[in-house]
Amino acid sequence: MQTYILLTCEPGHEKEIITHLKSLDSVIEVNGIWGKYDIFLKVHHDAESGLDKIIETLRRVENITSTYTIPILYGQGGSIDD
Amino acid sequence: MQTYILLTCEPGHEKEIITHLKSLDSVIEVNGIWGKYDIFLKVHHDAESGLDKIIETLRRVENITSTYTIPILYGQGGSIDD
Repeated sequence: MQTYILLTCEPGHEKEIITHLKSLDSVIEVNGIWGKYDIFLKVHHDAESGLDKIIETLRRVENITSTYTIPILYGQGGSIDD
Repeated sequence: MQTYILLTCEPGHEKEIITHLKSLDSVIEVNGIWGKYDIFLKVHHDAESGLDKIIETLRRVENITSTYTIPILYGQGGSIDD
């Protein structure tokens, strides 16, 4: 399963957080973004319990101030079906 | 360049919109999602003018009710650097 997560962080800490997130096994894609949120993240996990652990981990990362989790609705014919 | 777009649509039209979006050359990834938005989209385009055209096209698709565009901040070391 894959899940999208939008993060906000303390201003100025984007690059160090992105570098850290790239080192995590569960992270497929991470990018700094414009607008209401600061960082886009796509993660891979085996089941919902796996997602719990990822979010718990993210919320402990220094200077990450919020996480907005967007689960994928499988079965709607999207372009990821793993 | 790549850009993330979150879409909302009229309830019940998710699958047909996703099928349509998958047929567009600019679309890299599309999935139904849970929460405030209904569809996640990642598009590829050559420059800002290319993005204009994509958003104009999306906003004409029947039953898409809103588009929330999230440009990528290149230069922050994210995992897409094309």
